Amino acid sequence: MTLALDSAAQDLLFREAHTANAFTDEPVTDEQMQALYDLIKYAPTAFNQSPLRIVLVRSEEARERLVAHMSEGNQAKTKAAPLVAILAADNEFHEELPALFPHFPQAKDVFFGERPVREKSAELNAALQAGYFILGVRAAGLAAGPMTGFDAEGIRKEFLDGDHTPMLVVNIGKPSEDAYRPRSPRLAYDQVVSVV
Amino acid sequence: MTLALDSAAQDLLFREAHTANAFTDEPVTDEQMQALYDLIKYAPTAFNQSPLRIVLVRSEEARERLVAHMSEGNQAKTKAAPLVAILAADNEFHEELPALFPHFPQAKDVFFGERPVREKSAELNAALQAGYFILGVRAAGLAAGPMTGFDAEGIRKEFLDGDHTPMLVVNIGKPSEDAYRPRSPRLAYDQVVSVV
Repeated sequence: MTLALDSAAQDLLFREAHTANAFTDEPVTDEQMQALYDLIKYAPTAFNQSPLRIVLVRSEEARERLVAHMSEGNQAKTKAAPLVAILAADNEFHEELPALFPHFPQAKDVFFGERPVREKSAELNAALQAGYFILGVRAAGLAAGPMTGFDAEGIRKEFLDGDHTPMLVVNIGKPSEDAYRPRSPRLAYDQVVSVV
Repeated sequence: MTLALDSAAQDLLFREAHTANAFTDEPVTDEQMQALYDLIKYAPTAFNQSPLRIVLVRSEEARERLVAHMSEGNQAKTKAAPLVAILAADNEFHEELPALFPHFPQAKDVFFGERPVREKSAELNAALQAGYFILGVRAAGLAAGPMTGFDAEGIRKEFLDGDHTPMLVVNIGKPSEDAYRPRSPRLAYDQVVSVV
């Protein structure tokens, strides 16, 4: 056993999990999303800045507005998924830093006083949290269908504001029988890792 | 049980895991890093582009070159950690796409023919993978100390090339007794999640 994580958890989060393209009709509850968030919120970000913001698209009316901004190949599955989440970076995350980073509340101004610095930091750290979120969906016993094929500016205007950058749209639900494509190959260790 | 992930795994990856600032002398082996990679490689990226590249800084000579580019507050712990990993995005990931995305090998040129598009995609997807990597370190029974305080251009020149963008530097090892700061607060569900 080289890894400490038990093998059922390895399978659930990584080995047997796949990106899902189709789902059953079983709803995804607010209780599940709350439990998911209350798990992944502990995973780290720089200065505990926690810039990820999540819009859950539940109503039929909102779903239609979202689907209109998805690329053509993503429309049908986004329309049919039990729940869809828009993951966005909050470029004004520094407003929360005095509460989130109480042992150095000045970090808000000292490190993040300038908007371009905040945007770059929010982008990286919200993406880390998006990675945690995808694994969190799996931890909840659900399948995730993360997508980058959408009109980001359209989604920003429709669901967010100028202070938020949409990063991923994620379909969420129980996978149906035809949910998965065959697993594609992965890079070998030596193609990814070098030692100096 | 709202979550499917067993509670020991929840604790190991999220609830009881903390960013570590100090480590024991116990080495981190290549076998552990290989097992970690062979787990996290399955987590998803757009078009399976898998842009994360990892430089393991093992030799004393390389460690000194790295420490020189870390911000002052990160130098001592980076010097002392059993193993340090530089996580970088490969902006030329598209060269691997015909192998990684075999059912549409043209994606290499159709979607990623232009460098700025590749850079943006590599940045997002390597950051997702960096999130998987941090949880992978914990899955290996180790503690991670991820850092963004460094001279990225200096690290790029010292350890990478113009096609790679450094994203995080991560100290890795068994946490020592004084490894952890008290847990900082997290945002509440309602501060992060909205429903439409």
